[in-house]
Amino acid sequence: MFANGAPCKGGVMIVYAVHVKVIPGREQDFIEATKRNHENTRLEPGNFRFDVLQNAEDPASFMLYEVYESVEAVTAHKETPHYAAWRDTVADWMAEPRRGEKYDVIAPTKGSAW
Amino acid sequence: MFANGAPCKGGVMIVYAVHVKVIPGREQDFIEATKRNHENTRLEPGNFRFDVLQNAEDPASFMLYEVYESVEAVTAHKETPHYAAWRDTVADWMAEPRRGEKYDVIAPTKGSAW
Repeated sequence: MFANGAPCKGGVMIVYAVHVKVIPGREQDFIEATKRNHENTRLEPGNFRFDVLQNAEDPASFMLYEVYESVEAVTAHKETPHYAAWRDTVADWMAEPRRGEKYDVIAPTKGSAW
Repeated sequence: MFANGAPCKGGVMIVYAVHVKVIPGREQDFIEATKRNHENTRLEPGNFRFDVLQNAEDPASFMLYEVYESVEAVTAHKETPHYAAWRDTVADWMAEPRRGEKYDVIAPTKGSAW
């Protein structure tokens, strides 16, 4: 269910905003690796979104906007081969440690809106 | 179109992540005012998303995840009565200035994914 108690298809809707800064010159490599992660993650049954975004003022900064149906779906994502491949591929390109922020959903509350 | 050149319905897809910190005790007031803004903004033809999110570790911190079809749609949003009402209503509840980050979309690139 949502933070406000409204029901959604199974579990608790969870949003992660993951902030990434890559070292100069690795922007395009990061984009390609993350697009592959996007495509595979969107096929997971518990994943609702995996938006890959590049900061308009700082092209070396990215945000991944990930939405999952439940804590279990997040755990399942972390156990996939595509997540492990992405994590290992991008590891040397990080200019600083990734920073993940976890959010509860206030709106929208309709499951169909995700 | 999208940052990668793929076409989408009119204009350039734009994401804003707006970070808000409210003064203690105003969390629920902010949520109610922002839900009204969410509902009205989602009726704008150029708006694709307006997710209202509360930080799971710090309930006084919020993120608004706003997606628009074009620069023109962002401008139109800023001219609506519901935006002005929200801005004026929440003004005294801010613990610090709002911080907006503008992003280009890398993925998804299908218009139907928004």
